Amino acid sequence: MSHAIAYISRDTDGLHWKKVLEEALGPIDYRALDNLGNTDDIEIALAWKPDRGLIASFKNIKLIVSLGMGVDHLLADDKLPADVPIVRIMDDGLVGQMSEYAIFWALRHHRDIDKYAASQRAKQWKQLDFVDTIHRRVGVMGLGTIGQDTAKKFAALGFPTAGWSRTARALPNIETFHGKDGFEKFLARTDILVDVLPLTRDTRGILDAAAFARLPKDAYFINMARGGHVVDEALLAALDSGHLAGAALDVFNTEPLPTDHRYWTHPKVQVTPHIAGATNPRTASPGIIENIKRLRSGRALINTVDPKTGY
Amino acid sequence: MSHAIAYISRDTDGLHWKKVLEEALGPIDYRALDNLGNTDDIEIALAWKPDRGLIASFKNIKLIVSLGMGVDHLLADDKLPADVPIVRIMDDGLVGQMSEYAIFWALRHHRDIDKYAASQRAKQWKQLDFVDTIHRRVGVMGLGTIGQDTAKKFAALGFPTAGWSRTARALPNIETFHGKDGFEKFLARTDILVDVLPLTRDTRGILDAAAFARLPKDAYFINMARGGHVVDEALLAALDSGHLAGAALDVFNTEPLPTDHRYWTHPKVQVTPHIAGATNPRTASPGIIENIKRLRSGRALINTVDPKTGY
Ligand SMILES: NC(=O)c1ccc[n+]([C@@H]2O[C@H](COP(=O)([O-])OP(=O)(O)OC[C@H]3O[C@@H](n4cnc5c(N)ncnc54)[C@H](OP(=O)(O)O)[C@@H]3O)[C@@H](O)[C@H]2O)c1
Ligand SMILES: NC(=O)c1ccc[n+]([C@@H]2O[C@H](COP(=O)([O-])OP(=O)(O)OC[C@H]3O[C@@H](n4cnc5c(N)ncnc54)[C@H](OP(=O)(O)O)[C@@H]3O)[C@@H](O)[C@H]2O)c1
Repeated sequence: MSHAIAYISRDTDGLHWKKVLEEALGPIDYRALDNLGNTDDIEIALAWKPDRGLIASFKNIKLIVSLGMGVDHLLADDKLPADVPIVRIMDDGLVGQMSEYAIFWALRHHRDIDKYAASQRAKQWKQLDFVDTIHRRVGVMGLGTIGQDTAKKFAALGFPTAGWSRTARALPNIETFHGKDGFEKFLARTDILVDVLPLTRDTRGILDAAAFARLPKDAYFINMARGGHVVDEALLAALDSGHLAGAALDVFNTEPLPTDHRYWTHPKVQVTPHIAGATNPRTASPGIIENIKRLRSGRALINTVDPKTGY
Repeated sequence: MSHAIAYISRDTDGLHWKKVLEEALGPIDYRALDNLGNTDDIEIALAWKPDRGLIASFKNIKLIVSLGMGVDHLLADDKLPADVPIVRIMDDGLVGQMSEYAIFWALRHHRDIDKYAASQRAKQWKQLDFVDTIHRRVGVMGLGTIGQDTAKKFAALGFPTAGWSRTARALPNIETFHGKDGFEKFLARTDILVDVLPLTRDTRGILDAAAFARLPKDAYFINMARGGHVVDEALLAALDSGHLAGAALDVFNTEPLPTDHRYWTHPKVQVTPHIAGATNPRTASPGIIENIKRLRSGRALINTVDPKTGY
């Protein structure tokens, strides 16, 4: 039996991964999705949106690596072998990109850039009243690796910042809320809502009509987590009624976003094609390499995923 | 002789200033520009773009307060009494706004938002290659109160950040350059140039054809300082030739920007009407109040301006 590493993704050919792994580990038996060979050889799967049951067919698989920081794409496979550990990438570069994404759209809303762009088109020199940053409250749903970085950076810019998580958390300069009980209070004090939760049984559809109604009037919504959190009809209704000022959406219930979806043309919606945080081999590979070494020397893995909580 | 405070600005009626000053100092003899009364009573002038010679006509003037953090609007008055101290506001709220402004436009360029907006209009789901943040070098011209805050926040976002000043400065995590000798080196390593210099004899026209040529190809320029730094024909030529990727301009050689100016309609130029940092009475008044108290009790003033260097 050899120690093959399979690259299970349709997004790229994965050769950049082969390169960074071989730089650290020496030559590897690397198998791309379209050329897996004898799958009994596969020891490790690097996976992004694997077909249902594919990984279960690798008889000698020892480790499953999620190539995204989110793992819903993987846990959606209900045939995943129960006894094989799952780890995820931990990617500083991606985390930084996610915070950039949230800050960009928050500032665009906060600083009325849309109105200034309209003034430019009209060649109109018109200064608007501004909202003092201490009166623009940012709320981050999810205080994990990404949410903490995002919340910390908003606070450093002077925005009163809160976060919401499943279990209680304490963070400097961040007001924290948790659990079902904290959710409504968290929403009621949030002018700019940033979603960076994982998609799990508990978070699917969490942003429904009741949640949007709880936000103050003219709140702005940024979704850089998963489309499955959002009840699309509820979001569109909250935008159309004038309750919400706008939304920046990177993720959708169906991706690519279908051409006839209202989000594409809605004047209050900014669409990006799931690019808030791109996995970056430079920053993601050290953790993968560390886990491969740990696996092969029988030590405890890092960045493990708990299939029971779903993240 | 009374202790009148004159509000010398055409931008607003200034009544919000009267309010915040009276909250701290008790009733004041407040004179608006259109109702100065006997100008022999005026002890203190709060000034924004005063008419030439007006302040010199106040015989008993003891203190001139610049209502902007920039003082070029004031020093442009060559009749200003030479023996009257000039102080400027020191405004945390304004400083934070300035950094927001620079970060917003930098991220818009860095994250290809323009191209994604075009994709949205075409209903096209198209992920672009990204530039790793560690490869996008930000350079801040001016390392004063604003420039330091801006540079620090760019560095915290992960951008390799440099600053340029007149005298040598050392700042954590910021590469620093200074003086004429450092200018070319500073420009040559800068992908996103943020101007936050004061306008002085030495900085007028500093961004000319040679300076823009020194920037790497596809650099982006953000001017939140003063329009007088820029040779407009040189900037337009650098944009038109394809050397520069774009520019966000908040300040202009003539303000309001004349309706027929090419900046309004240039596809690579974003125009805002001098709103990068608005003076905020909440955060600007404590320093003014402190200086009024110091003046009246004969103590040394703070936030003083040196007419010789021009800032
Ligand atoms: N758009 C993109 O390009 C992109 C890229 C990468 C990741 N993402 C998304 O970002 C998500 C977050 O990533 P991460 O690395 O920050 O996740 P993480 O480290 O696993 O943290 C998850 C956070 O969500 C909280 N949470 C989970 N279930 C919850 C519930 N039912 N109620 C309240 N809070 C709950 C957790 O609470 P506790 O702290 O109590 O555990 C934790 O704070 C990923 O799952 C993925 O979906 C998107
Ligand atoms: N657009 C807006 O809404 C807005 C609002 C507020 C202010 N502003 C502009 O922002 C400017 C900067 O404000 P600030 O409070 O940060 O100024 P500051 O504290 O006075 O600092 C000025 C900085 O510029 C540097 N400098 C001055 N002359 C120079 C030269 N000839 N060569 C190289 N560096 C030079 C100084 O160098 P040293 O460190 O060596 O002294 C210092 O680092 C203001 O003057 C104003 O024009 C614009």
